[in-house]
Amino acid sequence: MNGAESLVRTLVAGGVDVCFANPGTSEMHFVAALDRVDGMRCVLGLFEGVVTGAADGYYRMKGTPASTLLHLGPGLANGLANLHNAKKANSGIVNIVGQHATYHIGYNAPLTSDIEGLARPMSSWVRTSPDATSVSADGAAAIVAAKSAPAQIATLILPADTAWNEADGIAQVPAESQRANYSSQAVDNAAKVLRAGGGETLLLMTGSALTEHGLALAAQIAGKTGCKVMGQTYNPRMARGKGRFAIDRIPYVIEQALPILKNFKNIVLVEANDPVAFFAYPNKPSMLKPQGCEVHRMTTGAENSVAALEALASALGAKPADRQPQKMVDIAKPTGALTHASIAQAIAMAIPENAIVVDESITTGRGFFPPTAAAAPHDWLQNMGGSIGFSTPVATGAAVACPDRKVICMVGDGSAMYTLQSLWTQAREGLNVVTIVFANKIYQILRGEFDGVGAGEPGQRALDMLKINRPDLDFVALAKGMGVPGRSVANADDFNKALAEAIAEPGPRLIEVQM
Amino acid sequence: MNGAESLVRTLVAGGVDVCFANPGTSEMHFVAALDRVDGMRCVLGLFEGVVTGAADGYYRMKGTPASTLLHLGPGLANGLANLHNAKKANSGIVNIVGQHATYHIGYNAPLTSDIEGLARPMSSWVRTSPDATSVSADGAAAIVAAKSAPAQIATLILPADTAWNEADGIAQVPAESQRANYSSQAVDNAAKVLRAGGGETLLLMTGSALTEHGLALAAQIAGKTGCKVMGQTYNPRMARGKGRFAIDRIPYVIEQALPILKNFKNIVLVEANDPVAFFAYPNKPSMLKPQGCEVHRMTTGAENSVAALEALASALGAKPADRQPQKMVDIAKPTGALTHASIAQAIAMAIPENAIVVDESITTGRGFFPPTAAAAPHDWLQNMGGSIGFSTPVATGAAVACPDRKVICMVGDGSAMYTLQSLWTQAREGLNVVTIVFANKIYQILRGEFDGVGAGEPGQRALDMLKINRPDLDFVALAKGMGVPGRSVANADDFNKALAEAIAEPGPRLIEVQM
Repeated sequence: MNGAESLVRTLVAGGVDVCFANPGTSEMHFVAALDRVDGMRCVLGLFEGVVTGAADGYYRMKGTPASTLLHLGPGLANGLANLHNAKKANSGIVNIVGQHATYHIGYNAPLTSDIEGLARPMSSWVRTSPDATSVSADGAAAIVAAKSAPAQIATLILPADTAWNEADGIAQVPAESQRANYSSQAVDNAAKVLRAGGGETLLLMTGSALTEHGLALAAQIAGKTGCKVMGQTYNPRMARGKGRFAIDRIPYVIEQALPILKNFKNIVLVEANDPVAFFAYPNKPSMLKPQGCEVHRMTTGAENSVAALEALASALGAKPADRQPQKMVDIAKPTGALTHASIAQAIAMAIPENAIVVDESITTGRGFFPPTAAAAPHDWLQNMGGSIGFSTPVATGAAVACPDRKVICMVGDGSAMYTLQSLWTQAREGLNVVTIVFANKIYQILRGEFDGVGAGEPGQRALDMLKINRPDLDFVALAKGMGVPGRSVANADDFNKALAEAIAEPGPRLIEVQM
Repeated sequence: MNGAESLVRTLVAGGVDVCFANPGTSEMHFVAALDRVDGMRCVLGLFEGVVTGAADGYYRMKGTPASTLLHLGPGLANGLANLHNAKKANSGIVNIVGQHATYHIGYNAPLTSDIEGLARPMSSWVRTSPDATSVSADGAAAIVAAKSAPAQIATLILPADTAWNEADGIAQVPAESQRANYSSQAVDNAAKVLRAGGGETLLLMTGSALTEHGLALAAQIAGKTGCKVMGQTYNPRMARGKGRFAIDRIPYVIEQALPILKNFKNIVLVEANDPVAFFAYPNKPSMLKPQGCEVHRMTTGAENSVAALEALASALGAKPADRQPQKMVDIAKPTGALTHASIAQAIAMAIPENAIVVDESITTGRGFFPPTAAAAPHDWLQNMGGSIGFSTPVATGAAVACPDRKVICMVGDGSAMYTLQSLWTQAREGLNVVTIVFANKIYQILRGEFDGVGAGEPGQRALDMLKINRPDLDFVALAKGMGVPGRSVANADDFNKALAEAIAEPGPRLIEVQM
């Protein structure tokens, strides 16, 4: 067997059995191996940003890495923005990037570039296979890196001759490294802080803590100690909906975040970062905690936060009975005009049980969290790296990971135009994704940021860089172009109806919400 | 004035008065400065690959750099593939990339990444401004770098506080560095080689040599010495059409290239590279010249190739009268079925005088060169870096550079799906671009490469990674979605008609050619 086949067999044996791919010439032996090796599902994307974002969504829902297949430096470059988002989400991905044959690199053919240099900023593990007999072991090492705790972006670069030359066979992937337990000392310290002043303490959680069980433990701790529990502004995945402990997130807008945090004397971090503004603004702080607030880390992304929360609850004597009832926002099908509030109500009513909600709704969705807390139970996925064009690929990968669940992808029109090619992959694979595009015809977030950074009121030339009307985008036509049925709605009744129909039907659908 | 305004004023004063932009929060002060500074045309793209590719096309037609405006590391990352292509084309571009405020970078907010690390592989000049008073001088240095010979990709990273803090004023851009003359010794050596064995010598030209005048000089030299004149497989820009000296290019397919080159004893390089295969293939050579063939460099991309050709013609006594008549392929409007040959004929007949042809036609266009040599005079632009998704942005930038010329963008369906957002910018700016999409529903080049790399005959799973049908793409719908009128044609008569209509109308049009 050649190097490429040894790699595909090693990946499958190592549990990496989905490959999101946009291959080129140097990857043809990998593609050819698919015909000989059973057990690898290869999913084609028409653009590499789709491929890498799909791998992120897959990891978030499956908890185990997929691979990507990318064509030399530029193919990797096209996928970097969503690798950035995936890296910030601690998602594990095995990137396979083709390269010229080792002896061809020095001739500086058109596609030659510094692939390792491109890979490093968005990867935690980078290696170039030197020869065909190394490929399977390198692949196994990439899998180990991708599955480490926290998970990593591992990028293996495969010169064409290492793919086509004879290999030795497949490599064993060592047993998975376990997520480290947790620091008892850190839990004891958190318990001490919470006992001393629960009401002045914020328990700030993200990552693996935000499962239904992790949140239930936090609810007990909050009930027992009076502490406040919040999530980060952005979280990779959060269990939400009816019956689950509903937490707020730190608002994106700094003027809203500061007053919420101003009275805390202590913050206990469960995987979360010491809260920092998304951007800097003149004469506003970067760090969001108040002066004198002490920050205590209980767990990192490498540790077992749910076990730590169990230990913390136990140390505090916090029991299920300590959980306090929460007041939910009332939800009902809206009528009349489409406003941010009525859109939120419609979505809260429509989310089906066990749905996966991918949220890139940006300004339109700033109020979505309270009403959807009362929706049917679901998982909520957010963009961890801030690079737009995240949601449609992540929704694609989540749907590949969970074919029996409905994926609701909520996206602003500006963001949707980054990686809209995802729709084609959804159509090809028959994925159960309902994409809701909020067509406000402007990068509305920038309209706010323009003021936020002290640039005043935009004039006509500046506004031209923020508005994306002239011409208006027609998302129903764009979806049709990629084989996805779509519908445009301009009032709440039509939106309710479109949501119900799209969710009832198998396969992808798109709804353009005219705002 | 703040740092951002000092930069915009420095750019305009330095002759960089077009900015292709996709800004975010950290770039809002640059955007705000547009309202206060006259003379900067800012063109919005919905994706950064459009932005950077447009800057490449602009440079190729204008010979002077545009700037881009990109949002932090991921925004730059999205533009890297077309910066790769631009770098390989020796196009000059001034990239302005936003960054977090200097004091905010260390807090690792979501969008934080190693921007310099991302920039370096595709830039020849990279700098981060340390403070607001440095920004204008850094901008001037970036312009100098972008305008050097050969031109460069210059990337200036602008932390947000260097944009909003007070600056000193604008910076003078030093006089442009002139393209170095040429080496008389290299010209003498080329003359000696051509005198000794013109019939066994290939004059291989690219870059600035491929103007109408440069080609005319080559025609004289060929007539006088019997040498063969060819272009590289890919060239940034070539003057072509009726009355101009028509040269062949080295074929992409290695089995076709080797026999064409096999009898040359000498190759004289005019800016061109020693010919190398685009990819390596098992048991085939990387270098295309035959054993024993000597390679003589006459000029590099930093030198004045037309002046060198004049000196060479003079040394050889080659006069206009020495130019030999060339036999052109007959062209006529085709009828009947659409084949590669009839498509080529239709395009050759339709190309209007002074058109700019951007060629990413890949396999469909392999035979386009001979018939279009008989078309009306035009410029022909190709992809120098091999990263697909090149043509629609380059066509956009070329149209911005040359509003009075018609741009014909020829693109395969697979390539078109990379950066199709270009159509929206074309619609917004009313650009005279006719995009012709060859919809063969497969990455046809890979079907050939699969065999070429020795992977044999693809089975069903492998074919699934090459074919882009299921579902079929509908490019007319996609164009409509972005405000560009489109038409689909399935026979030669309709294609002729669609071409004539699209070329006659102002503004962008799309033609989907069903194959």
